[in-house]
This record gives sequence, C-alpha cells and structure tokens, in this order.
Amino acid sequence: MTILLRTDQDQIATLTLNDPDKLNALSVAMLTALHAELDRIAADDAIRVVIIQGAGRAFCAGHDLSEMQAMRASAVGPAQLRALFDRCTAMMTRIQSLPQPVIAQVHGLAAAAGCQLVATCDLATASVDARFGVNGVNIGLFCSTPMVALTRNIAAKPAFEMLTTGRFLSADEAQHLGLINRTAKLDNLTRDTRSLAGGIAKKLSTAVRIGKQAFYAQAQMPTAQAYAYTGDVMVQNMADDDTAEGIAAFLEKRDPDWS
Amino acid sequence: MTILLRTDQDQIATLTLNDPDKLNALSVAMLTALHAELDRIAADDAIRVVIIQGAGRAFCAGHDLSEMQAMRASAVGPAQLRALFDRCTAMMTRIQSLPQPVIAQVHGLAAAAGCQLVATCDLATASVDARFGVNGVNIGLFCSTPMVALTRNIAAKPAFEMLTTGRFLSADEAQHLGLINRTAKLDNLTRDTRSLAGGIAKKLSTAVRIGKQAFYAQAQMPTAQAYAYTGDVMVQNMADDDTAEGIAAFLEKRDPDWS
Amino acid sequence: MTILLRTDQDQIATLTLNDPDKLNALSVAMLTALHAELDRIAADDAIRVVIIQGAGRAFCAGHDLSEMQAMRASAVGPAQLRALFDRCTAMMTRIQSLPQPVIAQVHGLAAAAGCQLVATCDLATASVDARFGVNGVNIGLFCSTPMVALTRNIAAKPAFEMLTTGRFLSADEAQHLGLINRTAKLDNLTRDTRSLAGGIAKKLSTAVRIGKQAFYAQAQMPTAQAYAYTGDVMVQNMADDDTAEGIAAFLEKRDPDWS
Repeated sequence: MTILLRTDQDQIATLTLNDPDKLNALSVAMLTALHAELDRIAADDAIRVVIIQGAGRAFCAGHDLSEMQAMRASAVGPAQLRALFDRCTAMMTRIQSLPQPVIAQVHGLAAAAGCQLVATCDLATASVDARFGVNGVNIGLFCSTPMVALTRNIAAKPAFEMLTTGRFLSADEAQHLGLINRTAKLDNLTRDTRSLAGGIAKKLSTAVRIGKQAFYAQAQMPTAQAYAYTGDVMVQNMADDDTAEGIAAFLEKRDPDWS
Repeated sequence: MTILLRTDQDQIATLTLNDPDKLNALSVAMLTALHAELDRIAADDAIRVVIIQGAGRAFCAGHDLSEMQAMRASAVGPAQLRALFDRCTAMMTRIQSLPQPVIAQVHGLAAAAGCQLVATCDLATASVDARFGVNGVNIGLFCSTPMVALTRNIAAKPAFEMLTTGRFLSADEAQHLGLINRTAKLDNLTRDTRSLAGGIAKKLSTAVRIGKQAFYAQAQMPTAQAYAYTGDVMVQNMADDDTAEGIAAFLEKRDPDWS
Repeated sequence: MTILLRTDQDQIATLTLNDPDKLNALSVAMLTALHAELDRIAADDAIRVVIIQGAGRAFCAGHDLSEMQAMRASAVGPAQLRALFDRCTAMMTRIQSLPQPVIAQVHGLAAAAGCQLVATCDLATASVDARFGVNGVNIGLFCSTPMVALTRNIAAKPAFEMLTTGRFLSADEAQHLGLINRTAKLDNLTRDTRSLAGGIAKKLSTAVRIGKQAFYAQAQMPTAQAYAYTGDVMVQNMADDDTAEGIAAFLEKRDPDWS
C-alpha cells in the first residue's frame, strides 16, 4: 500500500493520506512522502490548487506515537525526536511556501499535529461531524508545535482552552473561530471542496501565486513595511500581460482571454 | 461636480466620495482630494469624528481601472503605478494617523481598495444589504495592498478565501468576522452612524486623541514594550485638568464640566 | 477585613478580590496583595490551577479612582501614578508568567483595568448577566494600558469601539469576540468554573507548565523562530518520564500512572 496517493483532475491535485489503520498518522514516512509530493507539485505548472484529505475514518490523528516512543527509547532519542519535529515543521512550512493554494478537506478527526495541518493549510473545509483538537496534553505531551499554527489562526483564549483541556471543537465551532472556512454534509464534502478549489483554479494563476506568497510575507511585517512591500507586488502584478487583458476584459464587459 | 464633499454638523465631518458614475473609484484625483481634506480636518479642533460615505449606489469600488490601464500603457507606467499605490497607502495611513476617529459608512458595495478603506477606518457601519470583497483576483490583479489592512482586521482563513476566490461577504458575515462594527437597515444607516459618531464626539476629545494614537502604536509593539509605552500615556492623560474634572465628577456622581 | 482571600481545594487555589464596597478596585493594596499571593502560588507545587473571582456584586471595577485622584494632587503625583501603572502591569504580567493556568471567573461587572484582568487571565468564564467594558473614556481617562491586553484578545474594530464609546459588552458578545471562554447561569458559575479548572488540574502538570510558558513566548516570535523554539520544547517535553508513561498508557489503552 502506498502511504500517500495523488490524483490530478481539472488542474486540482488531490493528496490522500493513506495509512488508515494509523488514522493517517504523520510518521516519518508520511511526512517524507508529503514533502516530496509537495515539491513535485510546486514544479508542476499544470496544477492550480491542492486538496489534502485522509483515507478511512479520520483526516489525521497527529504524530505516530509508537514511532516516537521507539525513538525515545533509543540512545540517540533526543536527536531523532528533534529531527522528527524539524521534518514536520519543514513539511508544514512547505505548504505555505507552495505556489498553489492548499485546502484541507477534513472528515472524522483532526487531532494534534493533524489539527496543525488544518491550521497550516491556506483553506479548510470539513464535514459537519468532524472534530478538531490539540489533545496532546491528555497524554502529557503538550501540543507546542501545533500551537504555533493554531494561534496564528484563532484567538488566544479559545486556543489556550483547547491546548490545556484537550477539548475537541465541533465543525461549527471551528468555523466560528476561523479555523476552517466552511462545513458540508459528509456526502457533499468532496463536491463542495472541489467546487471551492475549482473556483480558484479558474483565476489567473500568476496572480494567485503572487498573492499567496505576499499573504504570508506581509503578515509578519510591521504595517508600513507591509505596504511598501505589497506596493511593489502590485506593480509587478500590473506588469503581467494577462493582468492587462483581465482589466481590459472587465472594462469592455467581456470574459478575459487567458488561454 | 466636486469629487469630494464635506459637510460639518455637531462636530462631525462627513466626507462624501462623489464620483458615482465610477462607483466612487479611488482615482488619483479622489485620493488627492481625500488626503488633503483629512489634513485639513487634522488641524480643525472643532471636528471630533469623521464619517466617510459614498454618493450613488455604492460606497467605493476600489481603484480606477481605466486610469491604471492608461498608466500601464505609458512609457513610465511602472513609476506612475508605484506612485499611485504610494499615494493610496499614504491616504490610508493618514486615516489611522488622524487625531479624530474615522467611521466608514458603507452601503451597496465596498470592493478591492474600497474594502481596504473599510478595513482601514477605525470603525465601520453598513446597511444590511452591503457587500464586501477583495475581488481583484477576478481580473488577474491580486488585492495585495488591500490585504495588508484586511489581514489586520479579520482572521487568516476567511481573509485568504476572500482574496483567492473573490467572493463577497454579506454585511452579517462582515460583522461576524470583525470587519465592521454594526449593521442597519439602509433607511436607518445615516442615523445610526451619526448616533455612533455623536457618542464619541461627546467624550473628552484629548482623551480620544491620546487613545487613538496609542491604539495603533502599541499594536505593533511586543507586549512588554506596549505596557511601558501605554503606562507613560496614562500618566500623560492623568495630567490633563479635564481628566481630573472627569474623575472628580464621577466620584461626586455628577456630570463633568468640560465646557 | 482581608483585601484578598485564598482558599485551596482539589489542587485549585481560588483568589477572591475582597473589597466589595469599592467593587474590588485594583488599589495599590489590592495589586500588592494579588502579586504577593501569585508569587506564593508560583512556588507551590500543590496548586495546579488558579481561579480569580470578586466578592460582592462585581468582579472588578478597575483602578481605585479616589486613590489616583489623591496621587494626582500630590507634589510627586506623576511619579506615584507611574509607579501605580508599573505595579499594575507587573501584576498582570505575573499572571501570564505564572506556571499554573489562571481563570477569571466574572460576575456583575468587569470594567477598565478589571476588564484588562479578564483579558490577561489565560481563561475566563462569566455569568450570563456579566458586562465587560473599557469605559475610562467616559471620565476622560482612555483605557490605554487595558488596551494592551484587550487588543491581544479580540479583533481591532470591536476593540476600538469599546475603547472610544465606553460601551459594555454582554457576556454573549464577549464570548463571541473571544474575550471569554464560556458563560453560565450565575447559580452555576462557580461549579462550571471549577469543572473547567478540575479538568486542567488532572493533566500532567509538567506538560501544562511547559505549554503555558511556550504559549506566550512563541506568540511574540516570527513563525520560523516560533517553530524552532517549540521544537526544542517538544523534545524537552518528551524527555519527561511521565510523558513516556502517558504515551505508553495511551498505546496500551489504559490510564496513565502519574501518581
């Protein structure tokens, strides 16, 4: 069985975490496969949007605890664990540095580093019965790395509560707090997520790529610096002939010819 | 026809974007007029609060695309465009550096840089049927500068969705996400906005000015620095005789004499 | 009468602000007593969670205005006031640097620095009829220091409105905006707050301590630095034998033995 599946359709790549017996845990093998596939997609101009989903009854249950426990027992455990967390951070960071938008399509459970994956993706959809938690505290392992992504998505008080109580959010709560964009009945989740992806895939891809990169860059700048930087981005975006065509089409009340 | 109207009443200045045929686009002329009027208001102690609204069927549709397209065709297009975005940023920045609070009163449409204007104002009201979007992506021009203001108002996931899908928010959604403060039926919008403005106009204006300046300054500081700074602001505020009168009046259960 | 009461039960310390005639104002005496008790709790390994509540009809009405007015009249007023705000900031900062999570249990009123106290605590509960305001502007003293905590809890537009209008939020509004975690009928407030505290008290306390410290530290770092730091925190957390037992228990589907 392949731990990660990829299917491309309509310029959308769907990555399926395929280790259902482990609830698609982010093992070294899974993290490595995901990162490698993201690198291939980054270089693939035919792909406009990426969807990440999970096979079986959950989206992703977080780190592979058996693997971590084995690392801990090793003589070089701390180094192995540090390498594991670095590998996980590198994969998460790759999602945000990817030129294409990435959507987490969540059903069942998104727990610990699985919830971090949801928070890290640019967009997220979920079935109405999905649940979201950073529950490491329940086993004595506080979700410190997932917290980095979570606290950059939702407000401080609800984030602190999730982290210290291990309580799971319903999909409605997750949407209310800003962790996900929309919910759907499980039967409609794939259709609705593909509809969201398809809408983005139809945009001018150079504009989307420019914008996604700028989104994360400006977020970490003081406001004045963010404006100076995005002013340059706008000028660069305006220099694109396809953008000129887009503006012309709008002014002439016709569809742009971006073929 | 004057591109920007100003009427003063009850210490409230109302600025009306008055280019309805262009849906009050933020052309060079409009940006220049707005910035100049804001400079005049900054020096006008009789004004306590500013309201910005739009004439015709929309609040503001964003940049003037015809003007931008003409700039692009020029030999010095990039320099002209860069100057345009700098001018826009300077006007937006002027709103937040203005001593007086500024309220966006939105009806119809607030699109692209028009939505940035809403995000930039200190407060915002809207008619229940108003719509808010950063829809530049639809014409291949990602709303990179509007994004700076938007992402400092609402959470990351809904902001990313707006920017990459071009989808418009309803007024209810905008309020839920924190982009606006309140909604009203269109017939009541001016009355309710003036009521909000009037409440602020009745406060001690030195306190409001001190507070608005500190609001944006401390937001960009690490927490410890923000406390050191605002501690100084509090001492400065306490040194005002009108503040002493305000505290005395409160302790004596009477209205302050701030005449 | 003692200005601050402490009762310990089930590893939870409850601090009661006990100056009901002054609506538990944060006088120099109250701030000093609170800070000293927090220092004692920090060194008390038997305490897992702290609850702060108010005696009488309100949680906390903010600074002691009579005391401040007297300071102002003094020859060394500015220095005294500066010392007061520094003392207040030090106490607020101590809450977040405390190893144990702190819950504000709010009934009646949380005003000005009292609202800052709610925003500063890691978690907050409130009775359904509680009200929250940063209303200093009403007496000409803008809530500049409370603003530091408030704007790190809720979005910019509603925070600006609260600060410039002095309007009070209902408990439902406060929860919606992220200022508090949950509401309860007044009769159930103590029970529900203790239930929240009890859930956290049952977690592995080393993990909760590691996590709370990391929560505030990473929040002020750029994302890449936050991940490097929390990666180290995860390795440190994994080195704890109790965490190994927690993971083992989970994998063996039994309760951890953390006795």
